[in-house]
Amino acid sequence: MYTLIHQDKNSKARLGKITTAHGEFDTPAFMPVGTHATIKGLMFKDVEEAGAQIILSNAYHVYLRPGMEIIKKAGGLHKFMNWNKPILTDSGGYQVFSLALFRKMHERGVEFQSHIDGAKHFLTPEDVVGIQETLGSDIMMPLDECVAYPCTKKESQAAMERTLAWAKRAQIAHSDKPGALFGIVQGATYEDSRIECAKRLVDMDFDGYSIGGVSVGESSSLIYNIIDLVAGLLPPDKPRYAMGIGYPFDILEAVERGVDMFDCVIPTRYGRNGTAFTSGGKIAIRNAVYAEDFKSLDPKCACYTCQNFSRAYLRHLFNAKEMLGLILLSLHNVYFFLDLMRQVRQAIKDDKFSQFKQMFLMNYNNQICA
Amino acid sequence: MYTLIHQDKNSKARLGKITTAHGEFDTPAFMPVGTHATIKGLMFKDVEEAGAQIILSNAYHVYLRPGMEIIKKAGGLHKFMNWNKPILTDSGGYQVFSLALFRKMHERGVEFQSHIDGAKHFLTPEDVVGIQETLGSDIMMPLDECVAYPCTKKESQAAMERTLAWAKRAQIAHSDKPGALFGIVQGATYEDSRIECAKRLVDMDFDGYSIGGVSVGESSSLIYNIIDLVAGLLPPDKPRYAMGIGYPFDILEAVERGVDMFDCVIPTRYGRNGTAFTSGGKIAIRNAVYAEDFKSLDPKCACYTCQNFSRAYLRHLFNAKEMLGLILLSLHNVYFFLDLMRQVRQAIKDDKFSQFKQMFLMNYNNQICA
Repeated sequence: MYTLIHQDKNSKARLGKITTAHGEFDTPAFMPVGTHATIKGLMFKDVEEAGAQIILSNAYHVYLRPGMEIIKKAGGLHKFMNWNKPILTDSGGYQVFSLALFRKMHERGVEFQSHIDGAKHFLTPEDVVGIQETLGSDIMMPLDECVAYPCTKKESQAAMERTLAWAKRAQIAHSDKPGALFGIVQGATYEDSRIECAKRLVDMDFDGYSIGGVSVGESSSLIYNIIDLVAGLLPPDKPRYAMGIGYPFDILEAVERGVDMFDCVIPTRYGRNGTAFTSGGKIAIRNAVYAEDFKSLDPKCACYTCQNFSRAYLRHLFNAKEMLGLILLSLHNVYFFLDLMRQVRQAIKDDKFSQFKQMFLMNYNNQICA
Repeated sequence: MYTLIHQDKNSKARLGKITTAHGEFDTPAFMPVGTHATIKGLMFKDVEEAGAQIILSNAYHVYLRPGMEIIKKAGGLHKFMNWNKPILTDSGGYQVFSLALFRKMHERGVEFQSHIDGAKHFLTPEDVVGIQETLGSDIMMPLDECVAYPCTKKESQAAMERTLAWAKRAQIAHSDKPGALFGIVQGATYEDSRIECAKRLVDMDFDGYSIGGVSVGESSSLIYNIIDLVAGLLPPDKPRYAMGIGYPFDILEAVERGVDMFDCVIPTRYGRNGTAFTSGGKIAIRNAVYAEDFKSLDPKCACYTCQNFSRAYLRHLFNAKEMLGLILLSLHNVYFFLDLMRQVRQAIKDDKFSQFKQMFLMNYNNQICA
């Protein structure tokens, strides 16, 4: 499914393409997050126009609501939400870890209480693959066990062994049915655990590899170190996905270390809270300094928001508690992340990724725009 | 500014066109409401695509927030919110009547406290015209005095006299500056007051005439009676606007009595609350009956929502408290009202308005669709 198109001459950054049953997408790729089968606040036509080639949805959330019966009757998740490009779904391992009211890991699977209504559920790795197959996901994740940061070596090791055992069971259950299945590298911040996990997953031969359990509270240098270590152990002919990463600078650091795929709720979450990402850094639109600022959020941006509305107007919408403010900032932020990836891909193609990264970060950190 | 294109042979319904500095619009027209310089939850590109040719904005709200200084610096309301088609603004008379924390009518003007921060304001009829001129409104309303329903003849008569005096002062203040100025017919449910008010306003020769103080709590038959009475007294070469009307059936009744222009918050307010208007009546999308209903809201509707999403998906969005649900229902409802007006205009053109109205109401009241 992965085609390496070009390897940057001066870094590990790589340009590629991934093919799925719902079409191709270019890598490095950013996947906007559609937790409840919707990218929060945005119409899919606008998400597509902003350049999204693939989105992520959460099996955990969709399984709980609306539930698999409705998705099955709708003919799968693509049809249910009317998104006809690729969908990657996560397994719910992270959601059970971060959201469920109660959870208990068993060898057989995970027992948890829904964060919505407290109902008890039990899911095996086989169930979780089956759920994603019913969703019609193009890229699936096996059930894994996340650990908190910090955690002991012993805890991390136990979670890793479980993750590996479940990955194998997921692979057997999925077999040659449609949709790609990735292996998820866990191991917390322990280098030897990460190395072991990566090697054993590679031996199992997955369609791609995810780096899980990063950005759960540890420092940036620890994150970059683990990503660098793990990416270096993964086969060059398979895609690599850093789960839940992240901020623009995190994405650039991971791209430089050879990662191909990213997802994060940051663009829409920050948009709803009134923060816009721009080439000159972040803008808190409620700030009084923008009251009479008739420039666009980012004069370099070609999104619908920046092409049509001023900071003064957007600030007014937030002050008046108008939905359109959240919508327009979310759209801009999603566009900003997708456009960043377009620039990243062009820079790799031109063998200039490091210069691009340096220039981007200089403008971004110096608040040139704001 | 008004051109009568065709008079329906079997009713008082009329097809026309109104020309403004920001282009023409067809009548009978429905104006989506953009209270805070935004149609709630919708991007202007989608409002335009849905067929809006003119929108209404509230001088009272925009005057209070963001305030006239910002609008002036933005170059007017069109530029501030980036809507380049006609805008009608109301005077704020109704908002002072319905929203202000405190209000006192004086001969010179109205004293009130802002519903936002309690700040005291005093506005004369001349101020209110000046505000709308600064907004760059294409069609302006003079400051008027609304009365509650029911009210005594004496109260109504006093409010009417003040409305007439202020209308004259607004006209003198506006003089030949750009933008049309309408006269507002008041007089509550008293027929002789309405007749007197209409005649005296027509003598002053306004660019058009509004019927104010309707749909403030009185019965439908009282509303239709007043509209019929007033519309019959207005000159055929000027547009007629029934302020704040209303539901689809109210609009049809008013069109049949010769009214040309309508505005109402109903499409977006109902949309946010989970109610969709359809050719087969209203749908409360949260209803469990729609959980596995994969039809569109209205199979006869060509809006983005109906062309792309099922009732089951929309219900899921409302259940999951997702913004997109509010957005998609608001868009559908705005489209539904605008499309109703397109059908109304076609029916008048074909001299079949009464048949159209009868057929529409039969389907709408019989819940054919739901």
